[in-house]
Amino acid sequence: MSMTGPAAIPLSMLLVFVAAKVMAEVFERLNQPGIVGEILAGVLIGPSVLGWLGPNEFLAALSDLGAMFLLFRVGLEVKSSELMKVGGTATLVACSGVVVPFLMGWGILLAWGEPSNEAIFVGASMVATSVGITAQVLAAKGLLHEVSSKIILAAAVIDDVLGLLVLAVVSSLTHGKLNLAQLGTTAFLAVAFTVIVAKWGTHAMERFVPHVERHLKLGEPQFVLSMAMLFSLAVLAVWIGVAAIVGAFLAGMALAESTGPRLRHLSNGVAELLVPFFLAGIGLHVELSAFSSGRNALLALIILVAAMVSKFIGCGLGSWAMGKSEALRIGVGMIPRGEVGMVVAQIGLGFGIIRQHIYGVVVFMSVATTIVAPPLIKMVYRGVKPVLAAEPAAAEEEVFRME
Amino acid sequence: MSMTGPAAIPLSMLLVFVAAKVMAEVFERLNQPGIVGEILAGVLIGPSVLGWLGPNEFLAALSDLGAMFLLFRVGLEVKSSELMKVGGTATLVACSGVVVPFLMGWGILLAWGEPSNEAIFVGASMVATSVGITAQVLAAKGLLHEVSSKIILAAAVIDDVLGLLVLAVVSSLTHGKLNLAQLGTTAFLAVAFTVIVAKWGTHAMERFVPHVERHLKLGEPQFVLSMAMLFSLAVLAVWIGVAAIVGAFLAGMALAESTGPRLRHLSNGVAELLVPFFLAGIGLHVELSAFSSGRNALLALIILVAAMVSKFIGCGLGSWAMGKSEALRIGVGMIPRGEVGMVVAQIGLGFGIIRQHIYGVVVFMSVATTIVAPPLIKMVYRGVKPVLAAEPAAAEEEVFRME
Repeated sequence: MSMTGPAAIPLSMLLVFVAAKVMAEVFERLNQPGIVGEILAGVLIGPSVLGWLGPNEFLAALSDLGAMFLLFRVGLEVKSSELMKVGGTATLVACSGVVVPFLMGWGILLAWGEPSNEAIFVGASMVATSVGITAQVLAAKGLLHEVSSKIILAAAVIDDVLGLLVLAVVSSLTHGKLNLAQLGTTAFLAVAFTVIVAKWGTHAMERFVPHVERHLKLGEPQFVLSMAMLFSLAVLAVWIGVAAIVGAFLAGMALAESTGPRLRHLSNGVAELLVPFFLAGIGLHVELSAFSSGRNALLALIILVAAMVSKFIGCGLGSWAMGKSEALRIGVGMIPRGEVGMVVAQIGLGFGIIRQHIYGVVVFMSVATTIVAPPLIKMVYRGVKPVLAAEPAAAEEEVFRME
Repeated sequence: MSMTGPAAIPLSMLLVFVAAKVMAEVFERLNQPGIVGEILAGVLIGPSVLGWLGPNEFLAALSDLGAMFLLFRVGLEVKSSELMKVGGTATLVACSGVVVPFLMGWGILLAWGEPSNEAIFVGASMVATSVGITAQVLAAKGLLHEVSSKIILAAAVIDDVLGLLVLAVVSSLTHGKLNLAQLGTTAFLAVAFTVIVAKWGTHAMERFVPHVERHLKLGEPQFVLSMAMLFSLAVLAVWIGVAAIVGAFLAGMALAESTGPRLRHLSNGVAELLVPFFLAGIGLHVELSAFSSGRNALLALIILVAAMVSKFIGCGLGSWAMGKSEALRIGVGMIPRGEVGMVVAQIGLGFGIIRQHIYGVVVFMSVATTIVAPPLIKMVYRGVKPVLAAEPAAAEEEVFRME
């Protein structure tokens, strides 16, 4: 199958999108979350099974954009004031959810007889939560308005900042000198960026959006402003050191209270098209080097179980004061590692600290946690009444404008 | 400005999107079509002026997708039965709109003293109409329901098939042997594909869409089916030899009568995001080699005027029976060459038949016709009452679903 020439773009769109949706349908029919099907579709068409497609730059770009629009859309449903309220618990959840997985990953690799630096990197790759997966499941089930959901979202954002620091420390420890001043600056900037946008972004947009609406002459002013916010906060986030999706989430949250249903319609369209590329993109990265030997396959399974148990215990402990059932939900909701764990492992691979078969173990852990988590999330939220955020019918007829 | 690393994707999205929209706003305030501003934004940030960005694979992919969604969205507003009704006139318009520009371009280059093969290729590059630009202007002004608009759309589709044949003939004449059997097969396949989808696509979808809606369990079944149609018809179109956007347009038209407002909301979102990349992407290709000498700059201006006059005369003559004002509109609406002319010139460049400075002339002609046409289109449609295709408020509250 030729993947170059003028048909390359629509052909790879077709393959990934249709594979993801066919598998989503299969999983829905099995009463399982469709999201798991979409991730597995990537595994299926990817290099490790059918080999129709491998990860490439174009698909990686669509996957990045898909993750950004997923988090932007979730941000649009969340009030920053409510997220700030759970900030204390979320910080606790994030911190203990970082410490326990790191120690467990490090310890297991050491006990397995691997080099100390490699053990440190594997521990670091188990730290960060992939908030996209959980957010998608919660949003689809109409559960974003639960307190536990807000704690998960806030903790995942804090997690990203902590993960950045852990990665910086780990890279310095294993690869160079630890520059405390630089680390302090990075930490300060990351926290300042997140807190400032979360705290004053909504207020600023409440003043700015009506102004833009009144004075701009081009079509869809809210959408145009929102995309500018989304991409500029994503760029800022990356420059500061946190993930682009954190910027996208903050952009959505800043706009949540000042924008109307039309923006939600339009950005939902983009998300519907691109999120399957994010999900299948995770699956595309699966490779079989983790299973090159029986011993390594066993390690992969142990690390997977440790990744699940450690986040569950760490985050559950951090939210124990909220009561057992909330702690259970938060512990399960923080399990998926997704693309974040892979990035850390890739850096270790680039440094020559992580070897290929251990890289395979981390990738397996990252993908498998995202596949295992959605059914568990569904289970622990069973019986909770969904609050579906309606897209209210527009008061006036919306006109088909193109400019 | 670094265009690699994790910020590359959101940064280039930000630059192109915001530049396009700022320029659109400027042009709207000058009472000019915003679309011209979006194309000029590409010229401005591109290599020939500010040099912030050049054409690259990622932007080219977004531009291709933008053009597909533009035509898909237009297709959704057009009934295939109405398009078939104007098929006779449209064929006449397309044919005379191919012959006159070809002869004029060829003649001018010969008179200018250029080699005969190069003259043939320049003539061929003046043949095809870029339907995207005109369709966008007509849709924005609510004029898609005019008879002249339908003739323009149908003629542009036929134009694309004719352009394919002209390119095949020209390539064989200048570069190899003319294989009549192969040419016949290509022509037959292209015509068969277009006619079959246009004639029976709507009917097939009217049976298929309700079935899919009833039986699929995943979210947004209409959107999922539509994307599958869009991408598969785009792939088929390319494989057969016509442009991907022809497939996208046919997909939209096939779905026009069986899908609801929700699909329009969602695909409008994708189009709002991506169409600026198509428009600015045209501008990004402008290069200054056309103006390397005074003599060449003069040729560029002559070719631009010839491109406009020849399409205007050719298409106007083909639709003369419709009355003077309709012929005027059709003649003007077929002027933009956009990306299609550039593709032909690139092939000539690849064969070594077109030299760099003549390539620059064709690129200038392609971009300049797309910039000049929208104000002219606005002018010739002055006084025509717009029929804005409403996006009717959904009967029931649409629910925020993510899966």
